[in-house]
Amino acid sequence: MEPSAVAVVGLGLMGGSLARELAGRGQRVLGFDRDRATVSAARAEGFDAHPLPAAGTSLLTDVRLLVLAVPVAAAVPLLGELLPLISGECVVTDVGSTKRAIAGAAERLGIAARFVGGHPLTGDHRAGWSASRRGLFEGARVYLCPTQHTGAAALARVQALWTGVGAHLCETTPEEHDRALAWSSHLPQIASSALALALAAEGFTRDELGPGGRDATRLAGSSPEMWSAICQENAEHLEPALRALEGRLSELRAALRSGDRDTIHRFFTRASRWAQA
Amino acid sequence: MEPSAVAVVGLGLMGGSLARELAGRGQRVLGFDRDRATVSAARAEGFDAHPLPAAGTSLLTDVRLLVLAVPVAAAVPLLGELLPLISGECVVTDVGSTKRAIAGAAERLGIAARFVGGHPLTGDHRAGWSASRRGLFEGARVYLCPTQHTGAAALARVQALWTGVGAHLCETTPEEHDRALAWSSHLPQIASSALALALAAEGFTRDELGPGGRDATRLAGSSPEMWSAICQENAEHLEPALRALEGRLSELRAALRSGDRDTIHRFFTRASRWAQA
Repeated sequence: MEPSAVAVVGLGLMGGSLARELAGRGQRVLGFDRDRATVSAARAEGFDAHPLPAAGTSLLTDVRLLVLAVPVAAAVPLLGELLPLISGECVVTDVGSTKRAIAGAAERLGIAARFVGGHPLTGDHRAGWSASRRGLFEGARVYLCPTQHTGAAALARVQALWTGVGAHLCETTPEEHDRALAWSSHLPQIASSALALALAAEGFTRDELGPGGRDATRLAGSSPEMWSAICQENAEHLEPALRALEGRLSELRAALRSGDRDTIHRFFTRASRWAQA
Repeated sequence: MEPSAVAVVGLGLMGGSLARELAGRGQRVLGFDRDRATVSAARAEGFDAHPLPAAGTSLLTDVRLLVLAVPVAAAVPLLGELLPLISGECVVTDVGSTKRAIAGAAERLGIAARFVGGHPLTGDHRAGWSASRRGLFEGARVYLCPTQHTGAAALARVQALWTGVGAHLCETTPEEHDRALAWSSHLPQIASSALALALAAEGFTRDELGPGGRDATRLAGSSPEMWSAICQENAEHLEPALRALEGRLSELRAALRSGDRDTIHRFFTRASRWAQA
Protein backbone atom coordinates (compact mmCIF):
# COMPACT_ATOMS: atom_id res chain seq x y z
CA MET A 1 0.00 0.00 0.00
CA GLU A 2 1.67 3.16 -1.30
CA PRO A 3 0.71 6.51 0.22
CA SER A 4 1.58 8.34 -3.01
CA ALA A 5 -0.64 8.01 -6.05
CA VAL A 6 -0.40 6.33 -9.44
CA ALA A 7 -2.03 8.41 -12.18
CA VAL A 8 -3.62 6.62 -15.12
CA VAL A 9 -4.39 8.92 -18.04
CA GLY A 10 -6.92 7.34 -20.39
CA LEU A 11 -9.51 5.00 -18.88
CA GLY A 12 -10.09 2.69 -21.83
CA LEU A 13 -9.63 -1.08 -21.90
CA MET A 14 -5.98 -0.86 -20.78
CA GLY A 15 -6.04 2.16 -18.47
CA GLY A 16 -9.42 1.31 -17.01
CA SER A 17 -8.37 -2.26 -16.28
CA LEU A 18 -5.13 -1.06 -14.72
CA ALA A 19 -6.96 1.48 -12.54
CA ARG A 20 -9.40 -1.18 -11.38
CA GLU A 21 -6.63 -3.64 -10.62
CA LEU A 22 -4.46 -1.14 -8.70
CA ALA A 23 -7.37 0.27 -6.73
CA GLY A 24 -8.55 -3.25 -5.96
CA ARG A 25 -5.10 -3.98 -4.50
CA GLY A 26 -5.19 -0.92 -2.24
CA GLN A 27 -3.11 1.47 -4.36
CA ARG A 28 -4.27 5.10 -4.46
CA VAL A 29 -5.19 5.77 -8.11
CA LEU A 30 -5.98 9.01 -9.90
CA GLY A 31 -7.82 8.44 -13.17
CA PHE A 32 -8.12 10.87 -16.08
CA ASP A 33 -10.02 10.74 -19.36
CA ARG A 34 -10.88 13.27 -22.06
CA ASP A 35 -14.36 11.77 -22.32
CA ARG A 36 -16.87 13.17 -19.79
CA ALA A 37 -19.10 10.09 -19.86
CA THR A 38 -16.11 7.91 -19.00
CA VAL A 39 -15.16 10.17 -16.08
CA SER A 40 -18.76 10.03 -14.79
CA ALA A 41 -18.93 6.27 -15.17
CA ALA A 42 -15.64 5.82 -13.31
CA ARG A 43 -16.76 8.20 -10.54
CA ALA A 44 -20.05 6.33 -10.23
CA GLU A 45 -17.98 3.25 -9.46
CA GLY A 46 -16.08 5.14 -6.76
CA PHE A 47 -12.94 6.03 -8.69
CA ASP A 48 -11.11 9.33 -8.19
CA ALA A 49 -11.61 10.28 -11.84
CA HIS A 50 -11.11 13.63 -13.58
CA PRO A 51 -11.08 15.24 -17.02
CA LEU A 52 -7.58 15.55 -18.55
CA PRO A 53 -5.45 17.72 -16.22
CA ALA A 54 -5.49 21.43 -17.18
CA ALA A 55 -2.37 23.60 -17.24
CA GLY A 56 -1.48 24.78 -13.73
CA THR A 57 -3.35 22.07 -11.82
CA SER A 58 -1.65 20.64 -8.75
CA LEU A 59 -3.55 17.34 -8.99
CA LEU A 60 -0.45 15.47 -10.18
CA THR A 61 2.13 16.86 -7.75
CA ASP A 62 1.87 13.85 -5.47
CA VAL A 63 2.01 11.28 -8.27
CA ARG A 64 5.01 8.92 -8.27
CA LEU A 65 4.07 7.00 -11.42
CA LEU A 66 2.26 8.36 -14.45
CA VAL A 67 0.79 5.85 -16.90
CA LEU A 68 -0.20 7.16 -20.32
CA ALA A 69 -2.96 4.87 -21.56
CA VAL A 70 -4.11 6.77 -24.64
CA PRO A 71 -3.83 5.85 -28.35
CA VAL A 72 -0.25 6.01 -29.68
CA ALA A 73 -0.83 9.16 -31.77
CA ALA A 74 -2.16 11.02 -28.71
CA ALA A 75 0.55 9.90 -26.30
CA VAL A 76 3.41 12.03 -27.65
CA PRO A 77 1.64 15.43 -27.48
CA LEU A 78 0.02 14.50 -24.16
CA LEU A 79 3.41 13.72 -22.63
CA GLY A 80 4.57 17.25 -23.48
CA GLU A 81 1.46 18.77 -21.92
CA LEU A 82 1.61 16.78 -18.70
CA LEU A 83 5.32 17.13 -18.08
CA PRO A 84 5.10 20.59 -16.42
CA LEU A 85 2.44 19.22 -14.04
CA ILE A 86 4.38 16.31 -12.52
CA SER A 87 7.24 16.31 -10.06
CA GLY A 88 10.83 15.60 -11.06
CA GLU A 89 10.58 12.33 -9.10
CA CYS A 90 7.62 11.02 -11.08
CA VAL A 91 8.36 8.04 -13.34
CA VAL A 92 6.50 7.96 -16.65
CA THR A 93 5.37 4.93 -18.64
CA ASP A 94 2.78 4.11 -21.30
CA VAL A 95 0.87 1.16 -22.78
CA GLY A 96 1.01 1.86 -26.54
CA SER A 97 1.50 -0.75 -29.26
CA THR A 98 4.50 1.05 -30.78
CA LYS A 99 7.48 2.17 -28.74
CA ARG A 100 9.97 4.15 -30.86
CA ALA A 101 7.91 7.35 -31.16
CA ILE A 102 7.16 7.71 -27.45
CA ALA A 103 10.72 6.79 -26.46
CA GLY A 104 12.01 9.44 -28.88
CA ALA A 105 9.65 12.00 -27.33
CA ALA A 106 10.90 11.14 -23.83
CA GLU A 107 14.49 11.71 -25.01
CA ARG A 108 13.60 15.04 -26.63
CA LEU A 109 11.69 16.22 -23.55
CA GLY A 110 14.65 15.39 -21.31
CA ILE A 111 12.93 12.69 -19.22
CA ALA A 112 14.63 9.63 -20.72
CA ALA A 113 16.12 8.78 -17.30
CA ARG A 114 12.68 8.34 -15.76
CA PHE A 115 10.78 6.98 -18.74
CA VAL A 116 10.07 3.31 -19.52
CA GLY A 117 7.93 2.37 -22.50
CA GLY A 118 5.39 -0.36 -21.78
CA HIS A 119 3.10 -2.52 -23.88
CA PRO A 120 0.76 -5.08 -22.33
CA LEU A 121 -0.16 -7.68 -24.96
CA THR A 122 -3.75 -7.83 -23.82
CA GLY A 123 -5.64 -5.81 -26.39
CA ASP A 124 -8.64 -7.31 -28.06
CA HIS A 125 -11.45 -6.04 -30.25
CA ARG A 126 -13.27 -4.47 -27.32
CA ALA A 127 -12.48 -0.97 -26.15
CA GLY A 128 -13.40 1.65 -23.58
CA TRP A 129 -14.08 1.86 -19.86
CA SER A 130 -17.09 -0.45 -20.22
CA ALA A 131 -14.77 -3.21 -21.53
CA SER A 132 -12.18 -2.70 -18.79
CA ARG A 133 -12.01 -5.31 -16.06
CA ARG A 134 -9.89 -6.76 -13.31
CA GLY A 135 -7.83 -9.78 -14.28
CA LEU A 136 -6.91 -8.45 -17.73
CA PHE A 137 -3.18 -8.54 -16.95
CA GLU A 138 -3.10 -11.83 -15.06
CA GLY A 139 -0.59 -14.02 -16.85
CA ALA A 140 -0.31 -11.53 -19.73
CA ARG A 141 2.94 -10.57 -21.42
CA VAL A 142 4.03 -6.96 -20.90
CA TYR A 143 6.88 -5.57 -22.99
CA LEU A 144 9.05 -3.04 -21.17
CA CYS A 145 11.31 -0.82 -23.27
CA PRO A 146 13.66 1.32 -21.19
CA THR A 147 15.43 4.13 -23.04
CA GLN A 148 19.21 4.14 -23.23
CA HIS A 149 19.17 6.47 -20.20
CA THR A 150 16.47 4.96 -18.01
CA GLY A 151 17.61 4.76 -14.37
CA ALA A 152 17.51 1.49 -12.43
CA ALA A 153 15.05 2.83 -9.85
CA ALA A 154 12.66 4.09 -12.53
CA LEU A 155 12.77 0.73 -14.30
CA ALA A 156 12.19 -1.10 -11.00
CA ARG A 157 9.14 1.03 -10.28
CA VAL A 158 7.53 0.15 -13.64
CA GLN A 159 8.50 -3.50 -13.28
CA ALA A 160 6.80 -3.58 -9.87
CA LEU A 161 3.68 -1.98 -11.35
CA TRP A 162 3.19 -4.83 -13.81
CA THR A 163 4.37 -7.80 -11.79
CA GLY A 164 2.06 -6.47 -9.07
CA VAL A 165 -0.93 -7.01 -11.34
CA GLY A 166 0.13 -10.50 -12.42
CA ALA A 167 1.92 -9.81 -15.71
CA HIS A 168 5.05 -11.49 -17.10
CA LEU A 169 7.71 -9.02 -18.21
CA CYS A 170 9.67 -9.11 -21.43
CA GLU A 171 12.39 -6.45 -21.69
CA THR A 172 13.54 -5.22 -25.08
CA THR A 173 14.53 -2.05 -26.96
CA PRO A 174 11.92 0.21 -28.57
CA GLU A 175 13.38 -0.60 -32.01
CA GLU A 176 13.31 -4.37 -31.54
CA HIS A 177 9.85 -4.17 -29.96
CA ASP A 178 8.40 -2.38 -32.98
CA ARG A 179 10.06 -4.76 -35.43
CA ALA A 180 8.78 -7.85 -33.60
CA LEU A 181 5.29 -6.52 -32.95
CA ALA A 182 4.83 -5.68 -36.64
CA TRP A 183 4.75 -9.45 -37.09
CA SER A 184 3.27 -10.82 -33.90
CA SER A 185 0.53 -8.26 -33.32
CA HIS A 186 0.06 -5.77 -36.16
CA LEU A 187 0.11 -8.37 -38.96
CA PRO A 188 -2.62 -10.56 -37.35
CA GLN A 189 -4.75 -7.43 -36.95
CA ILE A 190 -4.29 -6.49 -40.61
CA ALA A 191 -4.92 -10.06 -41.79
CA SER A 192 -8.19 -10.11 -39.87
CA SER A 193 -9.27 -6.70 -41.20
CA ALA A 194 -8.31 -7.58 -44.80
CA LEU A 195 -10.31 -10.81 -44.55
CA ALA A 196 -13.28 -8.82 -43.24
CA LEU A 197 -13.04 -6.37 -46.15
CA ALA A 198 -12.83 -9.17 -48.73
CA LEU A 199 -15.94 -10.82 -47.26
CA ALA A 200 -17.79 -7.52 -46.94
CA ALA A 201 -17.17 -6.64 -50.59
CA GLU A 202 -18.57 -10.01 -51.64
CA GLY A 203 -21.76 -9.43 -49.61
CA PHE A 204 -21.15 -11.83 -46.73
CA THR A 205 -22.13 -11.00 -43.16
CA ARG A 206 -20.20 -12.21 -40.15
CA ASP A 207 -23.05 -14.43 -38.95
CA GLU A 208 -22.68 -16.51 -42.12
CA LEU A 209 -19.28 -17.66 -40.86
CA GLY A 210 -18.67 -20.76 -38.80
CA PRO A 211 -16.89 -20.65 -35.42
CA GLY A 212 -13.47 -20.72 -37.12
CA GLY A 213 -14.27 -17.85 -39.47
CA ARG A 214 -15.60 -15.84 -36.55
CA ASP A 215 -12.32 -16.42 -34.69
CA ALA A 216 -10.35 -15.29 -37.73
CA THR A 217 -12.35 -12.06 -38.11
CA ARG A 218 -12.75 -11.14 -34.43
CA LEU A 219 -9.84 -8.68 -34.45
CA ALA A 220 -11.35 -6.83 -37.41
CA GLY A 221 -13.77 -5.23 -34.95
CA SER A 222 -10.96 -3.38 -33.17
CA SER A 223 -10.81 0.40 -32.96
CA PRO A 224 -10.00 1.86 -36.42
CA GLU A 225 -8.49 5.01 -34.89
CA MET A 226 -6.12 3.01 -32.72
CA TRP A 227 -5.00 0.73 -35.54
CA SER A 228 -4.64 3.44 -38.18
CA ALA A 229 -2.24 5.23 -35.87
CA ILE A 230 -0.27 2.10 -34.94
CA CYS A 231 0.18 1.04 -38.56
CA GLN A 232 1.25 4.50 -39.66
CA GLU A 233 3.84 4.66 -36.90
CA ASN A 234 5.12 1.20 -37.76
CA ALA A 235 4.80 1.34 -41.56
CA GLU A 236 8.49 0.64 -42.12
CA HIS A 237 8.41 -2.68 -40.23
CA LEU A 238 5.04 -3.66 -41.66
CA GLU A 239 6.26 -3.60 -45.25
CA PRO A 240 8.18 -6.91 -45.12
CA ALA A 241 5.54 -8.53 -42.90
CA LEU A 242 2.76 -7.71 -45.37
CA ARG A 243 4.88 -8.87 -48.28
CA ALA A 244 5.46 -12.20 -46.53
CA LEU A 245 1.74 -12.76 -45.94
CA GLU A 246 0.83 -11.81 -49.51
CA GLY A 247 3.59 -14.15 -50.72
CA ARG A 248 2.15 -17.12 -48.83
CA LEU A 249 -1.30 -16.49 -50.24
CA SER A 250 -0.13 -16.14 -53.83
CA GLU A 251 2.02 -19.29 -53.50
CA LEU A 252 -1.04 -21.27 -52.46
CA ARG A 253 -3.11 -19.70 -55.23
CA ALA A 254 -0.51 -20.73 -57.83
CA ALA A 255 -0.40 -24.27 -56.41
CA LEU A 256 -4.20 -24.55 -56.53
CA ARG A 257 -4.23 -23.37 -60.14
CA SER A 258 -1.60 -25.87 -61.23
CA GLY A 259 -2.94 -28.68 -59.02
CA ASP A 260 0.37 -28.96 -57.15
CA ARG A 261 -0.77 -31.32 -54.39
CA ASP A 262 2.56 -31.40 -52.59
CA THR A 263 2.77 -27.65 -52.20
CA ILE A 264 -0.87 -27.44 -51.09
CA HIS A 265 -0.37 -30.18 -48.53
CA ARG A 266 2.87 -28.63 -47.26
CA PHE A 267 1.13 -25.27 -46.84
CA PHE A 268 -1.46 -26.69 -44.44
CA THR A 269 0.90 -29.17 -42.77
CA ARG A 270 3.50 -26.57 -41.80
CA ALA A 271 0.88 -24.11 -40.63
CA SER A 272 -0.81 -26.77 -38.53
CA ARG A 273 2.47 -27.94 -37.01
CA TRP A 274 3.29 -24.36 -36.02
CA ALA A 275 -0.16 -23.73 -34.55
CA GLN A 276 -0.12 -26.91 -32.49
CA ALA A 277 3.47 -26.60 -31.25
CA MET B 1 -37.56 -42.96 -31.35
CA GLU B 2 -37.00 -44.78 -34.64
CA PRO B 3 -36.82 -48.60 -34.67
CA SER B 4 -34.57 -48.55 -37.77
CA ALA B 5 -30.99 -47.39 -37.52
CA VAL B 6 -29.00 -44.37 -38.62
CA ALA B 7 -25.47 -45.29 -39.75
CA VAL B 8 -22.69 -42.79 -39.24
CA VAL B 9 -19.54 -43.64 -41.17
CA GLY B 10 -16.56 -41.76 -39.79
CA LEU B 11 -16.52 -41.03 -36.06
CA GLY B 12 -14.48 -37.82 -36.06
CA LEU B 13 -15.55 -34.42 -34.75
CA MET B 14 -18.65 -34.30 -36.97
CA GLY B 15 -19.65 -37.96 -37.13
CA GLY B 16 -18.77 -38.66 -33.52
CA SER B 17 -20.75 -35.66 -32.31
CA LEU B 18 -23.72 -36.67 -34.44
CA ALA B 19 -23.59 -40.25 -33.16
CA ARG B 20 -23.48 -39.00 -29.57
CA GLU B 21 -26.35 -36.62 -30.12
CA LEU B 22 -28.60 -39.14 -31.88
CA ALA B 23 -27.89 -41.91 -29.38
CA GLY B 24 -28.48 -39.47 -26.53
CA ARG B 25 -31.90 -38.73 -28.00
CA GLY B 26 -32.86 -42.42 -28.20
CA GLN B 27 -32.08 -43.07 -31.87
CA ARG B 28 -30.48 -46.42 -32.70
CA VAL B 29 -27.07 -45.56 -34.18
CA LEU B 30 -24.52 -47.74 -35.96
CA GLY B 31 -21.06 -46.17 -36.01
CA PHE B 32 -18.19 -47.04 -38.34
CA ASP B 33 -14.61 -45.88 -38.53
CA ARG B 34 -11.51 -47.06 -40.39
CA ASP B 35 -9.41 -46.41 -37.27
CA ARG B 36 -9.34 -49.32 -34.80
CA ALA B 37 -8.58 -47.14 -31.80
CA THR B 38 -11.59 -44.96 -32.59
CA VAL B 39 -13.85 -48.03 -32.85
CA SER B 40 -12.55 -49.29 -29.49
CA ALA B 41 -12.98 -45.91 -27.85
CA ALA B 42 -16.55 -45.62 -29.12
CA ARG B 43 -17.36 -49.17 -27.98
CA ALA B 44 -15.92 -48.43 -24.57
CA GLU B 45 -18.47 -45.65 -24.31
CA GLY B 46 -21.26 -48.06 -25.21
CA PHE B 47 -21.64 -47.26 -28.89
CA ASP B 48 -22.46 -49.94 -31.47
CA ALA B 49 -19.25 -49.21 -33.38
CA HIS B 50 -17.53 -51.22 -36.13
CA PRO B 51 -14.67 -51.06 -38.61
CA LEU B 52 -15.70 -49.86 -42.09
CA PRO B 53 -18.32 -52.28 -43.47
CA ALA B 54 -16.78 -55.06 -45.60
CA ALA B 55 -18.24 -56.24 -48.91
CA GLY B 56 -21.15 -58.62 -48.36
CA THR B 57 -21.94 -57.56 -44.77
CA SER B 58 -25.62 -57.33 -43.83
CA LEU B 59 -24.94 -54.81 -41.06
CA LEU B 60 -26.44 -51.93 -43.10
CA THR B 61 -29.59 -53.66 -44.40
CA ASP B 62 -31.77 -52.13 -41.72
CA VAL B 63 -30.32 -48.63 -42.05
CA ARG B 64 -32.76 -45.92 -43.20
CA LEU B 65 -30.26 -43.06 -43.22
CA LEU B 66 -26.55 -43.29 -44.03
CA VAL B 67 -24.36 -40.33 -43.03
CA LEU B 68 -20.93 -40.14 -44.62
CA ALA B 69 -18.75 -38.23 -42.18
CA VAL B 70 -15.33 -38.74 -43.72
CA PRO B 71 -12.97 -36.22 -45.40
CA VAL B 72 -14.24 -34.96 -48.77
CA ALA B 73 -11.64 -36.87 -50.82
CA ALA B 74 -12.64 -40.16 -49.12
CA ALA B 75 -16.41 -39.68 -49.40
CA VAL B 76 -16.77 -40.28 -53.16
CA PRO B 77 -15.03 -43.68 -53.31
CA LEU B 78 -16.65 -44.72 -50.02
CA LEU B 79 -20.11 -43.97 -51.40
CA GLY B 80 -19.47 -46.38 -54.29
CA GLU B 81 -18.29 -49.08 -51.89
CA LEU B 82 -21.20 -48.78 -49.48
CA LEU B 83 -23.95 -48.53 -52.06
CA PRO B 84 -24.26 -52.32 -52.63
CA LEU B 85 -24.62 -52.80 -48.86
CA ILE B 86 -27.60 -50.52 -48.19
CA SER B 87 -31.26 -51.02 -49.10
CA GLY B 88 -32.97 -49.13 -51.92
CA GLU B 89 -34.95 -47.23 -49.26
CA CYS B 90 -31.89 -45.88 -47.48
CA VAL B 91 -31.35 -42.13 -47.80
CA VAL B 92 -27.74 -40.98 -48.05
CA THR B 93 -26.22 -37.73 -46.86
CA ASP B 94 -22.77 -36.40 -45.93
CA VAL B 95 -21.10 -33.62 -43.93
CA GLY B 96 -18.28 -32.52 -46.26
CA SER B 97 -17.14 -28.93 -46.80
CA THR B 98 -17.54 -29.13 -50.59
CA LYS B 99 -20.71 -30.34 -52.25
CA ARG B 100 -20.29 -30.55 -56.03
CA ALA B 101 -18.07 -33.65 -56.14
CA ILE B 102 -20.24 -35.79 -53.87
CA ALA B 103 -23.46 -34.63 -55.58
CA GLY B 104 -21.92 -35.55 -58.93
CA ALA B 105 -21.00 -38.98 -57.59
CA ALA B 106 -24.56 -39.53 -56.35
CA GLU B 107 -25.86 -38.69 -59.84
CA ARG B 108 -23.37 -41.04 -61.52
CA LEU B 109 -24.17 -43.85 -59.10
CA GLY B 110 -27.90 -43.48 -59.78
CA ILE B 111 -28.93 -42.49 -56.24
CA ALA B 112 -29.58 -38.79 -56.84
CA ALA B 113 -33.24 -39.25 -55.83
CA ARG B 114 -32.27 -40.34 -52.32
CA PHE B 115 -29.15 -38.25 -51.83
CA VAL B 116 -28.92 -34.89 -50.04
CA GLY B 117 -25.57 -33.22 -49.54
CA GLY B 118 -25.06 -31.76 -46.07
CA HIS B 119 -22.51 -29.45 -44.46
CA PRO B 120 -22.72 -28.45 -40.79
CA LEU B 121 -20.78 -25.22 -40.27
CA THR B 122 -19.36 -26.40 -36.99
CA GLY B 123 -15.82 -27.42 -37.81
CA ASP B 124 -13.00 -26.04 -35.76
CA HIS B 125 -9.31 -26.78 -35.37
CA ARG B 126 -9.97 -29.87 -33.25
CA ALA B 127 -10.58 -33.24 -34.83
CA GLY B 128 -11.30 -36.88 -34.07
CA TRP B 129 -13.56 -38.89 -31.76
CA SER B 130 -11.88 -37.40 -28.70
CA ALA B 131 -13.00 -33.91 -29.80
CA SER B 132 -16.58 -35.00 -30.57
CA ARG B 133 -19.26 -33.95 -28.13
CA ARG B 134 -22.98 -33.44 -27.66
CA GLY B 135 -24.23 -29.92 -28.29
CA LEU B 136 -21.98 -29.32 -31.31
CA PHE B 137 -24.93 -28.76 -33.64
CA GLU B 138 -27.13 -26.76 -31.25
CA GLY B 139 -27.88 -23.49 -33.02
CA ALA B 140 -25.39 -24.28 -35.81
CA ARG B 141 -26.00 -23.62 -39.47
CA VAL B 142 -26.27 -26.74 -41.64
CA TYR B 143 -26.26 -26.37 -45.42
CA LEU B 144 -28.43 -28.89 -47.26
CA CYS B 145 -27.85 -29.36 -50.97
CA PRO B 146 -30.42 -31.60 -52.61
CA THR B 147 -29.57 -32.80 -56.13
CA GLN B 148 -31.87 -31.89 -59.01
CA HIS B 149 -33.54 -35.25 -58.52
CA THR B 150 -33.78 -35.55 -54.73
CA GLY B 151 -37.21 -36.75 -53.66
CA ALA B 152 -39.28 -34.83 -51.11
CA ALA B 153 -39.33 -37.68 -48.61
CA ALA B 154 -35.55 -38.11 -48.77
CA LEU B 155 -35.05 -34.38 -48.22
CA ALA B 156 -37.51 -34.42 -45.32
CA ARG B 157 -35.61 -37.27 -43.65
CA VAL B 158 -32.32 -35.36 -43.78
CA GLN B 159 -33.99 -32.13 -42.65
CA ALA B 160 -35.45 -34.00 -39.66
CA LEU B 161 -32.01 -35.41 -38.81
CA TRP B 162 -30.52 -31.95 -38.41
CA THR B 163 -33.42 -30.04 -36.93
CA GLY B 164 -33.65 -32.92 -34.46
CA VAL B 165 -30.18 -32.11 -33.15
CA GLY B 166 -30.83 -28.37 -32.91
CA ALA B 167 -29.39 -27.07 -36.20
CA HIS B 168 -30.72 -24.29 -38.44
CA LEU B 169 -31.07 -25.34 -42.07
CA CYS B 170 -29.96 -23.38 -45.09
CA GLU B 171 -30.92 -24.96 -48.43
CA THR B 172 -28.90 -24.25 -51.54
CA THR B 173 -27.45 -25.92 -54.64
CA PRO B 174 -24.09 -27.75 -54.56
CA GLU B 175 -22.67 -25.17 -57.00
CA GLU B 176 -23.80 -22.13 -55.00
CA HIS B 177 -22.71 -23.80 -51.75
CA ASP B 178 -19.16 -24.29 -53.01
CA ARG B 179 -18.94 -20.77 -54.40
CA ALA B 180 -20.15 -19.20 -51.14
CA LEU B 181 -18.10 -21.41 -48.84
CA ALA B 182 -14.90 -20.59 -50.74
CA TRP B 183 -15.34 -17.14 -49.21
CA SER B 184 -17.06 -17.71 -45.89
CA SER B 185 -15.15 -20.81 -44.74
CA HIS B 186 -12.21 -21.79 -46.94
CA LEU B 187 -10.76 -18.26 -47.23
CA PRO B 188 -10.68 -17.69 -43.42
CA GLN B 189 -8.92 -21.05 -43.06
CA ILE B 190 -6.32 -20.11 -45.67
CA ALA B 191 -5.82 -16.63 -44.19
CA SER B 192 -5.16 -18.16 -40.79
CA SER B 193 -2.74 -20.76 -42.20
CA ALA B 194 -0.90 -18.18 -44.33
CA LEU B 195 -0.51 -15.95 -41.28
CA ALA B 196 0.86 -18.90 -39.32
CA LEU B 197 3.39 -19.65 -42.07
CA ALA B 198 4.54 -16.03 -42.27
CA LEU B 199 5.07 -15.94 -38.49
CA ALA B 200 6.76 -19.35 -38.45
CA ALA B 201 9.24 -18.33 -41.14
CA GLU B 202 10.16 -15.22 -39.12
CA GLY B 203 10.82 -17.36 -36.03
CA PHE B 204 7.81 -16.45 -33.92
CA THR B 205 5.99 -18.99 -31.79
CA ARG B 206 2.26 -18.89 -31.15
CA ASP B 207 2.70 -18.11 -27.45
CA GLU B 208 4.35 -14.82 -28.38
CA LEU B 209 1.00 -13.63 -29.74
CA GLY B 210 -1.61 -11.72 -27.76
CA PRO B 211 -5.20 -12.96 -27.41
CA GLY B 212 -6.15 -11.39 -30.76
CA GLY B 213 -3.26 -12.99 -32.64
CA ARG B 214 -4.12 -16.34 -31.09
CA ASP B 215 -7.72 -15.97 -32.31
CA ALA B 216 -6.48 -15.13 -35.80
CA THR B 217 -4.22 -18.20 -35.97
CA ARG B 218 -6.47 -20.74 -34.22
CA LEU B 219 -7.78 -22.21 -37.47
CA ALA B 220 -4.24 -22.81 -38.70
CA GLY B 221 -4.14 -25.83 -36.38
CA SER B 222 -6.86 -27.62 -38.39
CA SER B 223 -6.27 -30.96 -40.12
CA PRO B 224 -3.91 -30.49 -43.11
CA GLU B 225 -5.34 -33.57 -44.86
CA MET B 226 -8.87 -32.28 -44.62
CA TRP B 227 -8.01 -28.80 -45.84
CA SER B 228 -5.71 -29.87 -48.64
CA ALA B 229 -8.56 -31.94 -50.07
CA ILE B 230 -11.19 -29.21 -49.61
CA CYS B 231 -9.05 -26.57 -51.31
CA GLN B 232 -8.14 -28.83 -54.21
CA GLU B 233 -11.81 -29.63 -54.79
CA ASN B 234 -12.75 -25.97 -54.61
CA ALA B 235 -9.72 -24.46 -56.37
CA GLU B 236 -11.82 -22.78 -59.06
CA HIS B 237 -13.89 -20.78 -56.54
CA LEU B 238 -10.90 -20.04 -54.34
CA GLU B 239 -9.00 -18.20 -57.07
CA PRO B 240 -11.08 -14.96 -56.94
CA ALA B 241 -11.36 -15.15 -53.14
CA LEU B 242 -7.59 -15.37 -52.71
CA ARG B 243 -7.06 -12.58 -55.23
CA ALA B 244 -9.46 -10.37 -53.28
CA LEU B 245 -7.63 -10.96 -49.99
CA GLU B 246 -4.22 -10.37 -51.54
CA GLY B 247 -5.61 -7.20 -53.13
CA ARG B 248 -6.72 -5.79 -49.78
CA LEU B 249 -3.33 -6.47 -48.24
CA SER B 250 -1.37 -4.89 -51.09
CA GLU B 251 -3.68 -1.84 -51.08
CA LEU B 252 -2.91 -1.27 -47.42
CA ARG B 253 0.79 -1.84 -48.00
CA ALA B 254 0.81 0.79 -50.75
CA ALA B 255 -1.08 3.24 -48.53
CA LEU B 256 1.38 2.70 -45.67
CA ARG B 257 4.32 3.30 -48.00
CA SER B 258 2.89 6.54 -49.36
CA GLY B 259 1.49 7.68 -45.99
CA ASP B 260 -2.06 7.82 -47.38
CA ARG B 261 -3.89 8.38 -44.08
CA ASP B 262 -7.39 8.35 -45.58
CA THR B 263 -6.95 4.97 -47.22
CA ILE B 264 -5.39 3.51 -44.07
CA HIS B 265 -8.20 4.83 -41.92
CA ARG B 266 -10.86 3.63 -44.36
CA PHE B 267 -9.31 0.14 -44.37
CA PHE B 268 -9.75 -0.27 -40.62
CA THR B 269 -13.03 1.64 -40.40
CA ARG B 270 -14.84 -0.47 -42.99
CA ALA B 271 -13.47 -3.71 -41.57
CA SER B 272 -14.54 -2.72 -38.07
CA ARG B 273 -18.01 -1.68 -39.20
CA TRP B 274 -18.47 -5.04 -40.92
CA ALA B 275 -17.21 -7.01 -37.91
CA GLN B 276 -19.46 -5.16 -35.48
CA ALA B 277 -22.61 -5.23 -37.64
